[in-house]
Amino acid sequence: MELLRIGVIGTGAIGRDHMRRITNNLSGGVITAVTDVNTEAARGAVEALGIGANIYPDDVTLIGSGEVDAVLVTSWGPAHQKSVLAAIEAGLPVFCEKPLATTAEGCKSIVDAEVARDKRFVQVGFMRRYDKGYRQLKEAIDGGFIGEPLMIHCAHRNASVADSYTTDMAITDTLIHEIDVLQWLIGDEYRSAQVSFPKKSRNALGHLGDPQIVMLETAGGVIITAEIFVNCKFGYDIQCEVVGEEGLIRLPDVSSPAFRKGGVAGNALLMDWKDRFIDAYDVEIQDFIDNVRKNGMPQGPTAWDGFIAQVTADACVRSQQSGEREAIELGVKPELYSGMMQRQV
Amino acid sequence: MELLRIGVIGTGAIGRDHMRRITNNLSGGVITAVTDVNTEAARGAVEALGIGANIYPDDVTLIGSGEVDAVLVTSWGPAHQKSVLAAIEAGLPVFCEKPLATTAEGCKSIVDAEVARDKRFVQVGFMRRYDKGYRQLKEAIDGGFIGEPLMIHCAHRNASVADSYTTDMAITDTLIHEIDVLQWLIGDEYRSAQVSFPKKSRNALGHLGDPQIVMLETAGGVIITAEIFVNCKFGYDIQCEVVGEEGLIRLPDVSSPAFRKGGVAGNALLMDWKDRFIDAYDVEIQDFIDNVRKNGMPQGPTAWDGFIAQVTADACVRSQQSGEREAIELGVKPELYSGMMQRQV
Amino acid sequence: MELLRIGVIGTGAIGRDHMRRITNNLSGGVITAVTDVNTEAARGAVEALGIGANIYPDDVTLIGSGEVDAVLVTSWGPAHQKSVLAAIEAGLPVFCEKPLATTAEGCKSIVDAEVARDKRFVQVGFMRRYDKGYRQLKEAIDGGFIGEPLMIHCAHRNASVADSYTTDMAITDTLIHEIDVLQWLIGDEYRSAQVSFPKKSRNALGHLGDPQIVMLETAGGVIITAEIFVNCKFGYDIQCEVVGEEGLIRLPDVSSPAFRKGGVAGNALLMDWKDRFIDAYDVEIQDFIDNVRKNGMPQGPTAWDGFIAQVTADACVRSQQSGEREAIELGVKPELYSGMMQRQV
Amino acid sequence: MELLRIGVIGTGAIGRDHMRRITNNLSGGVITAVTDVNTEAARGAVEALGIGANIYPDDVTLIGSGEVDAVLVTSWGPAHQKSVLAAIEAGLPVFCEKPLATTAEGCKSIVDAEVARDKRFVQVGFMRRYDKGYRQLKEAIDGGFIGEPLMIHCAHRNASVADSYTTDMAITDTLIHEIDVLQWLIGDEYRSAQVSFPKKSRNALGHLGDPQIVMLETAGGVIITAEIFVNCKFGYDIQCEVVGEEGLIRLPDVSSPAFRKGGVAGNALLMDWKDRFIDAYDVEIQDFIDNVRKNGMPQGPTAWDGFIAQVTADACVRSQQSGEREAIELGVKPELYSGMMQRQV
Repeated sequence: MELLRIGVIGTGAIGRDHMRRITNNLSGGVITAVTDVNTEAARGAVEALGIGANIYPDDVTLIGSGEVDAVLVTSWGPAHQKSVLAAIEAGLPVFCEKPLATTAEGCKSIVDAEVARDKRFVQVGFMRRYDKGYRQLKEAIDGGFIGEPLMIHCAHRNASVADSYTTDMAITDTLIHEIDVLQWLIGDEYRSAQVSFPKKSRNALGHLGDPQIVMLETAGGVIITAEIFVNCKFGYDIQCEVVGEEGLIRLPDVSSPAFRKGGVAGNALLMDWKDRFIDAYDVEIQDFIDNVRKNGMPQGPTAWDGFIAQVTADACVRSQQSGEREAIELGVKPELYSGMMQRQV
Repeated sequence: MELLRIGVIGTGAIGRDHMRRITNNLSGGVITAVTDVNTEAARGAVEALGIGANIYPDDVTLIGSGEVDAVLVTSWGPAHQKSVLAAIEAGLPVFCEKPLATTAEGCKSIVDAEVARDKRFVQVGFMRRYDKGYRQLKEAIDGGFIGEPLMIHCAHRNASVADSYTTDMAITDTLIHEIDVLQWLIGDEYRSAQVSFPKKSRNALGHLGDPQIVMLETAGGVIITAEIFVNCKFGYDIQCEVVGEEGLIRLPDVSSPAFRKGGVAGNALLMDWKDRFIDAYDVEIQDFIDNVRKNGMPQGPTAWDGFIAQVTADACVRSQQSGEREAIELGVKPELYSGMMQRQV
Repeated sequence: MELLRIGVIGTGAIGRDHMRRITNNLSGGVITAVTDVNTEAARGAVEALGIGANIYPDDVTLIGSGEVDAVLVTSWGPAHQKSVLAAIEAGLPVFCEKPLATTAEGCKSIVDAEVARDKRFVQVGFMRRYDKGYRQLKEAIDGGFIGEPLMIHCAHRNASVADSYTTDMAITDTLIHEIDVLQWLIGDEYRSAQVSFPKKSRNALGHLGDPQIVMLETAGGVIITAEIFVNCKFGYDIQCEVVGEEGLIRLPDVSSPAFRKGGVAGNALLMDWKDRFIDAYDVEIQDFIDNVRKNGMPQGPTAWDGFIAQVTADACVRSQQSGEREAIELGVKPELYSGMMQRQV
Repeated sequence: MELLRIGVIGTGAIGRDHMRRITNNLSGGVITAVTDVNTEAARGAVEALGIGANIYPDDVTLIGSGEVDAVLVTSWGPAHQKSVLAAIEAGLPVFCEKPLATTAEGCKSIVDAEVARDKRFVQVGFMRRYDKGYRQLKEAIDGGFIGEPLMIHCAHRNASVADSYTTDMAITDTLIHEIDVLQWLIGDEYRSAQVSFPKKSRNALGHLGDPQIVMLETAGGVIITAEIFVNCKFGYDIQCEVVGEEGLIRLPDVSSPAFRKGGVAGNALLMDWKDRFIDAYDVEIQDFIDNVRKNGMPQGPTAWDGFIAQVTADACVRSQQSGEREAIELGVKPELYSGMMQRQV
């Protein structure tokens, strides 16, 4: 089978990282076209890898070049919507890093574009669904191992964040991953969100509300309590415990050697979030390549999932300000996203 | 030193259990007087142990007999208040199982009786403060190991409950232990409580709301999320994780041998709550005996602690019905309970 | 029931410790008589506790005083044999700290004295049999949970030892506890022992062979590998894993709060061996008191167990020098120690 | 860079597995030539993958075809030596599954062939060196985290084995992996081996001695105790604990979700050994491809490592019969394998 010719829009850190993995780690794909608002950056990325991809002035010319079978959108968030819509317009499968768009309306316009063509083109970069631990959780839950899920207790902890990190980013950059992966995990829909602010850590900058506790309720009545703590200092720590009618199950910690030394029995925690889901990125992109080559369309997180994430994040941000429980309303789920999707990936 | 002569009011299960431990396991105390609404039950309890205690017709005659140096109140809840007030009136130290009284007003009347005499007489039977694990947590927190506490995540899970267990008992019989031990653990006061009901487990009887999630906020801004799940089926399971500015710390599980068998690496969970704090009961009663012998008064959980627990439980029960955040107002803490008390036990 | 009047022979650290627990923690016993080679030490021990025990010039006068119902031998090792034999001669139950005697012949003379009277008088201070974890292991093994035991992997690690600690003490002071508890655990008899010396730790003093690895074989074919490492630096660490035909089971670690801090998920290890079996000492002495009061004789580790330990330790010490597998020969087990004993405590 | 053209000799299970991973999972390599003693099997393997590789009648014609840049030897063990020598003769890099040869002499002849050309051609398929857990152990040890290693405690447990599995295969098929990975882990050489047979499990077939305990000593004085138990029933379980002068460190278990259900807190064990090192196989073959493309020669386990494994296994098998400690003599290590190799991979 021919290699999938991939065009990359945006050669920042995540774009270069995906270029590297497609070239050196994965099979079935080849980078043939690249663009970036900074053309020199695009050229540098191509040269660093020693590949023969052409440099294009912008997303539209790249998409229209005839040199690509699929597109990766790894530009900055506000640019995503336009590139994704252009790819759909051209009939090209597109992998888009989160956010799909920076507004619910933007996400909805992409959903509408797919629905108009009655075909999926888009996979959103929610890599946690490809993490081995989350997949083990889902397999156990789908298999009835804990009975019906009733509650989920989560934590998303970061050792520290940059000065530019703001209170709403705790939702839009951080919790966004839980928002996507949890609805997928239990096959349910959100109905409301409420955010509370505990005593603020002295390790958080003045402008930042940290930690936060988010309570989400689903249509099926599952209650999710999620701690977000981005200055926890001790490490990057992702916890997820699902409590069901017959038992509970917990996301495994990243494994590392147990030691005994200096009066402590322990093991090292990850400090850098980039190490946590590194394998999941590989699986995610390989899955995109394999499905596009085999079926002509991706099977991962959909544009509708991107829309869900954005609407839910908006409700959380509203609750950060109101302190109240805020409703989450998605409207009717288009037929295109029904059925098989729920159990995919 | 002379043995402490103890009178027992109420020879139900917990009363007989304390009589047994004072007689067979602990040192420094001797049961000399017993009463129960069922005199035959009282006599049976004495004979079963083979001890020489006298049987009295009621609490008042026992307290006035001159045969006891201290009193244990282990009757049913609604009878506690009267017996405790009579003991204080007689100037006798009194250990009272929870609840101190079944209403906040009742608890307050006992506080007032102590304040009027400017002396502590009462220890309330909140045994968790004597559990080794909780004491290790408190020592670590007081020592600054995790910095300032910001959040606490708890779970109180029971395999199953009797048919007579009602929705409000999830607070008054179950969460009541967390209510006491957490304010002691972090040295803070509650300000509000909110109860949410997730999807109900099919393993809970029709009249019972199970599980429940309680969110408590303290004056210092600490937010506590507590899961109560009394039909969890898998075992009796007490979890407590305190997240601070510099790290987190977690109540240890009950230790048991790790096994590998039949495809599972695991260890057995407790099924019966009575086994969980069995050592704590011994330490609690020994502490009562030792302090009364040495100082003439107990040093454990105070009447004020009993009052806090009742007021907080009332707010939780109100929130079960309103679904809203309910305020917790204690009024001014009497001087008698200040200072040393906070760090005691 | 009358309190058991106990005479204590030897008021060093362990003697004073047992005096304290009998007086302050346990029930049913009272210290009425004390002796020590240093009479002032004996007097000091009595006064420190504020008890009314009489001071005797030596073991023989204490035993003959008529003031004691049972004897605790807590003098230094070389004095044990004579005191124990005197107690048996006087018909008094006797609790003797290990070693029962410093030679196999000495132990055998005590066994012979009991056999001559066809009655057990002696309990040897092997407290591990009273440790909750070991008892859970034994219960599981006796219940067939892992099928027939085939192998045991142990470690006995100490952070460090005093300068006076010598290579043979790794056996006679350290491994001696495994020697006793393992034969009890699996109800089997030792047949051979072999000691190997790995590379020596630079943290061990020049005269000391540390660590050591001991391989013991039983009559039933079980092979035990035991690491002894008394300068392991990281803590006091007792490991015991029993591998059977259907699964394996492991001695639980001492429980302590799990923490996450500074890049580590861990929990504190014990540093001081004295803390490890502190509860077991209480249970052990209470069991001695209870059984003597109830049955007139102890039910714990027997004189024959003391003999087994000494003969096995001798073989290990021989192998330290020969490097060869050394045979362990016990002769015929007297009827007195058969039957019920194996499953007792 | 051009793809590495790979010829596969032997299309049994492991051969087909490597063909699949090179084609579908890894990057930089392509299968261009295949041979097998059963030509139809070779053809079937090629067709199943849908690749365009040519089928050759035997190893020699494949090697001489000019169509391959490197060779994978995945035939049955007795055929390895001849194919590997032919590849070296032709100057082709060769990846050979274990054993390198079925005799020490055979391994030595391959070492000699490399030494004669003063160049490495061979990588032996000891995949554990590419396992994340072992690499974390090695990194910690090399970094001085536990000080000098003194002892290693291992277990290699299999739920069950086929009837054809014989007592010596516990060494040559099972322990062989520990033999390789442990000398690499601590950078030391074996000096002696001794095998002991505990009581035999009733779950082992009549002809099979199971479990076994192997004690290995190194030139540096490290003592390794290894349990081999291939009918342990409970799962596939690889343990490795390295005890050093300053602490100990342990190979992580395979991570899986922790659950609480039915009175047990636990997690699932692997049952099938093929799942245990599945990631390591990917890394191993990718490393072979990358190094051959970049440096013209592999950097993984060498022919000398294959020779060490064979000589050490021979000593263990001799000890199975003699019951004695058997010496391990390797002769002088050729310069070709010195230096950088020790710290490689």
